[in-house]
Amino acid sequence: MPRIMRPDDANVAGNVHGGTILKMIEEAGAIISTRHCNSQNGERCVAALARVERTDFLSPMCIGEVAHVSAEITYTSRHSVEVQVHVMSENILTGTKKLTNKATLWYVPLSLKNVDKVLEVPPVVYSRQEQEEEGRKRYEAQKLERMETKWRNGDIVQPILNPEPNTVSYSQSSLIHLVGPSDCTLHGFVHGGVTMKLMDEVAGIVAARHCKTNIVTASVDAINFHDKIRKGCVITISGRMTFTSNKSMEIEVLVDADPVVDNLQKRYRAASAFFTYVSLSQEGKPLPVPQLVPETEDEKKRFEDGKGRYLQVKAKRQAQVEPQP
Amino acid sequence: MPRIMRPDDANVAGNVHGGTILKMIEEAGAIISTRHCNSQNGERCVAALARVERTDFLSPMCIGEVAHVSAEITYTSRHSVEVQVHVMSENILTGTKKLTNKATLWYVPLSLKNVDKVLEVPPVVYSRQEQEEEGRKRYEAQKLERMETKWRNGDIVQPILNPEPNTVSYSQSSLIHLVGPSDCTLHGFVHGGVTMKLMDEVAGIVAARHCKTNIVTASVDAINFHDKIRKGCVITISGRMTFTSNKSMEIEVLVDADPVVDNLQKRYRAASAFFTYVSLSQEGKPLPVPQLVPETEDEKKRFEDGKGRYLQVKAKRQAQVEPQP
Amino acid sequence: MPRIMRPDDANVAGNVHGGTILKMIEEAGAIISTRHCNSQNGERCVAALARVERTDFLSPMCIGEVAHVSAEITYTSRHSVEVQVHVMSENILTGTKKLTNKATLWYVPLSLKNVDKVLEVPPVVYSRQEQEEEGRKRYEAQKLERMETKWRNGDIVQPILNPEPNTVSYSQSSLIHLVGPSDCTLHGFVHGGVTMKLMDEVAGIVAARHCKTNIVTASVDAINFHDKIRKGCVITISGRMTFTSNKSMEIEVLVDADPVVDNLQKRYRAASAFFTYVSLSQEGKPLPVPQLVPETEDEKKRFEDGKGRYLQVKAKRQAQVEPQP
Repeated sequence: MPRIMRPDDANVAGNVHGGTILKMIEEAGAIISTRHCNSQNGERCVAALARVERTDFLSPMCIGEVAHVSAEITYTSRHSVEVQVHVMSENILTGTKKLTNKATLWYVPLSLKNVDKVLEVPPVVYSRQEQEEEGRKRYEAQKLERMETKWRNGDIVQPILNPEPNTVSYSQSSLIHLVGPSDCTLHGFVHGGVTMKLMDEVAGIVAARHCKTNIVTASVDAINFHDKIRKGCVITISGRMTFTSNKSMEIEVLVDADPVVDNLQKRYRAASAFFTYVSLSQEGKPLPVPQLVPETEDEKKRFEDGKGRYLQVKAKRQAQVEPQP
Repeated sequence: MPRIMRPDDANVAGNVHGGTILKMIEEAGAIISTRHCNSQNGERCVAALARVERTDFLSPMCIGEVAHVSAEITYTSRHSVEVQVHVMSENILTGTKKLTNKATLWYVPLSLKNVDKVLEVPPVVYSRQEQEEEGRKRYEAQKLERMETKWRNGDIVQPILNPEPNTVSYSQSSLIHLVGPSDCTLHGFVHGGVTMKLMDEVAGIVAARHCKTNIVTASVDAINFHDKIRKGCVITISGRMTFTSNKSMEIEVLVDADPVVDNLQKRYRAASAFFTYVSLSQEGKPLPVPQLVPETEDEKKRFEDGKGRYLQVKAKRQAQVEPQP
Repeated sequence: MPRIMRPDDANVAGNVHGGTILKMIEEAGAIISTRHCNSQNGERCVAALARVERTDFLSPMCIGEVAHVSAEITYTSRHSVEVQVHVMSENILTGTKKLTNKATLWYVPLSLKNVDKVLEVPPVVYSRQEQEEEGRKRYEAQKLERMETKWRNGDIVQPILNPEPNTVSYSQSSLIHLVGPSDCTLHGFVHGGVTMKLMDEVAGIVAARHCKTNIVTASVDAINFHDKIRKGCVITISGRMTFTSNKSMEIEVLVDADPVVDNLQKRYRAASAFFTYVSLSQEGKPLPVPQLVPETEDEKKRFEDGKGRYLQVKAKRQAQVEPQP
């Protein structure tokens, strides 16, 4: 399973992201375990990832190298499959090969008819007798550990203060994005279009959280790009609802750039805009939207400003429609 | 500039995201204005987006339709180019064409040698005399509006309480991701590999924010996938630093799924893991990392837990290296 | 090299685009030939695609299937490498495997220090003696054909207003693409596979416009890559229908590269090819296609040329099927 590593797979120093490698490992594991679970006649199924064991990144992989991923089924229990995956990096110019990763993954076969139903796994044939016993030990160990972690993960990172539905806090959302090569022009700054796409994505999530229906962009207010965003920045795109009319929602989106690897430069505002969204029925007709409940003074002020923009656009539209005298 | 709309360009109801259309508009604008600004001999430059005027989405575009984007330069000032872009959607099966968008964008030519230097724009030739005058009015109007917006955008969405460097709050980061078709299996739930890639991305941002150098994944603790993530969910991936040794950082990553369009189902924890990152010098050697300063009782508790995991792994590694008796 | 086919790899009917398959084929070819050309000590190089022989799509591939790509070096001349690539599709639920493609590609090693310098290729070791002789014949044949095509590509595809259905003007289409970092090799020129994917996309739009049904790539004529496309170019990919038989359409695709930021270099023809598409019913059976109406002298000439190619391929196929005397 060789694949050339591209600029988009790596950080600015040319090292391939661990996440890219984990994704390749999981794809190989999903293929081999789905194939195995369907190898006997019976109900068709798809293998879903249940657990990945501790994985060490033994040596870095670079842009231009070829990744080789090989996978093997090493144990099966009644309802799960253990897959071991090896990743080698090959420099095709010098011919050097290095072991980059060894990973162990556990999959569970889910029925295609009902993805909440776990099917039985056909037993694997072991080449050495001890393999089954060793596998069973790993199986029991991970089962125990899984049960333990279930309890450990109660809390959350961002303090969510249980906001009421229809408030600004309830739907507000932020997205961080690490600027990659394909986001950029050849000269190392982000295409305006890439920024706008992320802004619309955040606005859409705010709108969907607020009204929980199918929503579409109706318009975008003028967007000013105050400053360039350079390669290697982390950008934070934040959206909050500012105003609702009967059938539309206005969302303010702010883009801040944070030059993480450059200690001297401060985080700065790169762009901002107002997006208007409408909620659509299954037939594509606009639906009424739940009214926003502004709570703080700032939110009330922004609601009034939003109302002003809404009435201004409405007046302009009506003026255009009026018959000329 | 026709392009077929793909499943990933659209929401679950098949409507193309406004952001996808904005991205195509900007690409067309960037090409035509870069070409224009390089049409005379002189210093080579690239056109950077400075402003997009208010844009209405006149009719929805669907998966399978072909988008046609056409761009025209409508005005040039000494240092900026105005581009008008039209987007038509064509249903190639029925032949129906509809106007989807009209947009106006302003670009500024930046020198390729020094992207902070703005070059002069060759004048455009107008076919009608009034065009120049009308363009000048639009130019003055947007200039005025840009200056106003500069003042408007002071505040930020998430209350950042100016945390001290090296604290947990300073580097903690969250990412939201709207699950799209190419993230999913055919049966409508997210590939484990996609989730792991996003987890590594957040962990990397936390690590880079903490130590402001080039960082790479050294290992990942066991990851348990507590529950499937279904199509149409918004996933929030949050990362916070839990522990630092001399040359490594441990980051806890939590994945929560939020079924936005399904009012009945609650947000739930889908996966969690600990990532270990190291900081590398330009020669690829591990660097010392700034020590994490835990503040709250919870942070101190997590630091101790992290230290426990670190010492356990270290002991295991030394045991493997020790000669067997 | 297994890879699961995702929704974005396919058209609305679930058939994987020919362009996606061509891109995988080229990636496999680039890896094996770059590795071979660097197998002896000497100047480091990267293999650039020079030509793809006529390729038939023997059976469709669908979303959810796994593509297996295997590549082998079958001949080396002093300055070029011939690679044969096989693509199998595997349904991992049923276990069915089918041959989807056999392709032959020619690569040329370019020096990493100076990408305009062609290096020498280490000779391959043949397992049977006849192989070298057979390879030389293929080498001579393609060399002859390449020289001929150089002359053929003078003209360009220009838009015509309000064309009649079934004419060439009605379905002809152009796409422009700004070359970005992730389209390129490390040495700053576009991967052949990226170009082929775009060519197939345009051909598909032309075919769908003409017959307004679900269409799939049936074959691609030999593609010659006349010249490298460098980073920072805008490429224009134009397609026009040249010929229709009862159940197939032939589309000519031309690729022109335009170095927008470099005033001195002229727009040049980078590649060209003929794609054959068929129209499929919902059950996957070939449908009759509307007959093309050539209008101008050039269009009539191209129609006759297309008919010639069609009859030649048909005759060749019948000869293969005929029982040996």
